[in-house]
Amino acid sequence: MRAAIIAVGSEMLGISRVDTNSLDVTRHLEEWGVELVRKSVVGDHAADLAHELRAALAECDIVAVMGGLGPTEDDVTKEVVSEVLGIPLREEEEILERMAALFANRGYEMPESNRKQAFVFEGHGFLRNPRGTAPGFHLDFDWEGRPRHLWIFPGVPNELHGMLEADFGPWLRTLGLARRFWRTLRIAGMPESLADEKLKPFYDRYRETPVTILASRGELSLHFYANGPEDSAYARLLAMEAEVREALGERVYGTADDTLELVVGRMLLARGESVATAESCTGGLLSGRITDVPGSSQWFAGGVVAYSADVKMAMLGVDPEHIQKHGEVSEEVARDLAQGARRRFGTRWGIGVTGIAGPDGGSDAKPVGTVHLAVASRDHVEHRRVYFAGGRENVRRFATNAALDLLRKVLSAGC
Amino acid sequence: MRAAIIAVGSEMLGISRVDTNSLDVTRHLEEWGVELVRKSVVGDHAADLAHELRAALAECDIVAVMGGLGPTEDDVTKEVVSEVLGIPLREEEEILERMAALFANRGYEMPESNRKQAFVFEGHGFLRNPRGTAPGFHLDFDWEGRPRHLWIFPGVPNELHGMLEADFGPWLRTLGLARRFWRTLRIAGMPESLADEKLKPFYDRYRETPVTILASRGELSLHFYANGPEDSAYARLLAMEAEVREALGERVYGTADDTLELVVGRMLLARGESVATAESCTGGLLSGRITDVPGSSQWFAGGVVAYSADVKMAMLGVDPEHIQKHGEVSEEVARDLAQGARRRFGTRWGIGVTGIAGPDGGSDAKPVGTVHLAVASRDHVEHRRVYFAGGRENVRRFATNAALDLLRKVLSAGC
Repeated sequence: MRAAIIAVGSEMLGISRVDTNSLDVTRHLEEWGVELVRKSVVGDHAADLAHELRAALAECDIVAVMGGLGPTEDDVTKEVVSEVLGIPLREEEEILERMAALFANRGYEMPESNRKQAFVFEGHGFLRNPRGTAPGFHLDFDWEGRPRHLWIFPGVPNELHGMLEADFGPWLRTLGLARRFWRTLRIAGMPESLADEKLKPFYDRYRETPVTILASRGELSLHFYANGPEDSAYARLLAMEAEVREALGERVYGTADDTLELVVGRMLLARGESVATAESCTGGLLSGRITDVPGSSQWFAGGVVAYSADVKMAMLGVDPEHIQKHGEVSEEVARDLAQGARRRFGTRWGIGVTGIAGPDGGSDAKPVGTVHLAVASRDHVEHRRVYFAGGRENVRRFATNAALDLLRKVLSAGC
Repeated sequence: MRAAIIAVGSEMLGISRVDTNSLDVTRHLEEWGVELVRKSVVGDHAADLAHELRAALAECDIVAVMGGLGPTEDDVTKEVVSEVLGIPLREEEEILERMAALFANRGYEMPESNRKQAFVFEGHGFLRNPRGTAPGFHLDFDWEGRPRHLWIFPGVPNELHGMLEADFGPWLRTLGLARRFWRTLRIAGMPESLADEKLKPFYDRYRETPVTILASRGELSLHFYANGPEDSAYARLLAMEAEVREALGERVYGTADDTLELVVGRMLLARGESVATAESCTGGLLSGRITDVPGSSQWFAGGVVAYSADVKMAMLGVDPEHIQKHGEVSEEVARDLAQGARRRFGTRWGIGVTGIAGPDGGSDAKPVGTVHLAVASRDHVEHRRVYFAGGRENVRRFATNAALDLLRKVLSAGC
């Protein structure tokens, strides 16, 4: 089975927005091994959409069109489909009544323009949209002698999502395709090229089900799959996972939707311990990530953003001599920060981060991108000097990755 | 003039990546009012790309193809173009020599597979790629009797960017099109629907050059343009800007690449003053944003992330009675936090943020999404109670917007 996705909307052809709805559709296609051949964006113009639709139908068994179902003149999807397929539209009483009731509940009369959302394809059903007013459609027909499935969804992400779950997914399930089971492993503290090298034999061994590695914001994720039936597919996924873990060791920190902050939080919660932070160059981003996790107050006491030497000394007890001798960006100051955080907030663990995020402030000895990290408990301090390229934003983000990963390693080591 | 963009690469058809390169091409097209009719993504498959290319050439004067120029078997762009247009490829000595030299410099011998990057189109020039090994192309030909321009770029973002600046932009300039000048205004503290309502007369008056408003992460930006010549276009843009400012007042906080943190930083720097933060629900994201700005150490002293009542009292001097009587999420605590930050760090300004980010912790009186903000100086405290929907991430992000915007307003008022 081959599929195409068409997103309709002129706003996605400007410089500020890209289509991301298609990722939600893709998730369903990948689950059943349906090959996504192309995806495209067209503006709100009938002729362009008609051309796009014909091109997709010529090539693909399943075509998903998203958007252009609103009440305005710009919304032309149904009109174009009606013309291209030669299926007339008719007004559907059920939709009209529901819309009128929705507007009445909000205390408005339904604008005349909304009537067009009640039009459906003659002789075909429609998909209910509990989250909005635009119905969706699944049209089943022959195109140049070949069977085609055209799915039409609203462009509003949560309305689309609802219909994918309620209608599209269940329909894919009925096609009798071999289910595809996916596994994702998350990898920290490793550049893509090194991971690639270590995974070379793994890639080679699984050529028939290609493995992908993605780098995003200084972290890697490895995606691989096996085809059903479920039992044998899972057995194969487990074997594949074991090989990756063998190759990459403790660099694999989690699966699926895990994040470093989530994994570290889970470890702390299990141990009944908590952490505090003392940040210089990351300026609060580290504590910001830790507190992204709901419930993080159970393992995170608080943090100090110490942007000046005075604050480092006064609020975190950094030794003035360390600053004078080694500079604010140094192993000694990172250690003092970590200890200061721990003491100040009365937690078992403290994290200290100090570095040069740039663009200014670098030197030959300490170029922009140099970061010192430390994780401290009462008995032990673990330190890392790291270096990141790629500008201020990357240095700061990657430093938070490295800090969380250092805490993870210390906790894993059973300290 | 009409244009289409084709991004080539199977990785952009998965669930994790979308094409963003096209935005860089679009920026150039918009500058000259070239209409982008469609953009699409196809995988690394010759037949699919050929089909896509034919569809684009049938409709558009300018077609930009990005990607598929690498040295691997998967890279098929040149081969497909050669076949579709009937232009043979030939090996170009200059490129081959440069590649060999690049590899030699790094101490490697050039892999045989890289040879294919030295192939160019017979009878056509090529575009040099100082940042990589793949040359680009500009092919100029007739397709079904109409003149067409096919541009082929590498998919690596910075290599693409270089060629757009060096070749594509200058070429567009030679076409004699009316230049389009853009203006962007940034708007804070206003829901999209309210801005839309206030801007209705403005939208109506400029129907021939459509205005777009985009909402992103709780802020709005308004984009509008005027066509050249430069002097009259700028005069028109200034008149449009004045109208928007008249309609939205102080909600307009900046232009182009301004951010709230940048604007606030600029104001503080000009006054020779600085700020400190005390954050509860935002957990460091506010100080993280303030320190996103290079040089922010000049106006930012530091912050405390106070995630527990104990820390609020011990480190920021929040009155225990206020917590007991009004709860940690209250006007009184926000005020104490702001005053505490100011005193603790010895700055003129302090910001306090306390709220319920969710998903748990809400009540009827204080639902999830309730946030109290305060900005304090020695003589004055400004407080806001705000409410945000949309889940933990939105509540936290929008709270940082509101906090920065409150400081901006206080500074604008000349306090």
